[in-house]
Amino acid sequence: MFVILVYDAGEKRVQKFLKICRKYLVHVQNSVFEGEITEAVLKMLINELKTVINEDEDSVLVYKFRTKKYYERLSLGIDKPSHEKFVF
Amino acid sequence: MFVILVYDAGEKRVQKFLKICRKYLVHVQNSVFEGEITEAVLKMLINELKTVINEDEDSVLVYKFRTKKYYERLSLGIDKPSHEKFVF
Repeated sequence: MFVILVYDAGEKRVQKFLKICRKYLVHVQNSVFEGEITEAVLKMLINELKTVINEDEDSVLVYKFRTKKYYERLSLGIDKPSHEKFVF
Repeated sequence: MFVILVYDAGEKRVQKFLKICRKYLVHVQNSVFEGEITEAVLKMLINELKTVINEDEDSVLVYKFRTKKYYERLSLGIDKPSHEKFVF
């Protein structure tokens, strides 16, 4: 399964979000991550995010796709490589 | 075609990016937009963004999908409705 994850977190929590997401996905923009992940591992990621999220201030969106076949990705301006190695 | 657009822009340009993207897509998170759009209209959107982007500092990613069928969207924390009316 391919996912795109975007978050908007309060300043105090941004580094925690970044650290957690980087364990599971590839960092492609400031607060945007993408990658191949299983349903089970996605659950782990979400559970970790739940330990730091402030439900009244932060927002996380996860777009799940069965396959990567159906997408094309355009980029304007700075482009971080989307195929960099996962950082564990 | 369904698209997800995310941007990371310098403070001076954020409002311009927001205003342009809102003309074409639905605002779902701080700097995240989604919506149904044709290839021709997407080109108009991208051309407008090119007039304000600073290529050395800003970043725009557009994920294009042939259909919306293949996606599921999870949300944690604050959730802006993804089906609000387009703002023209």
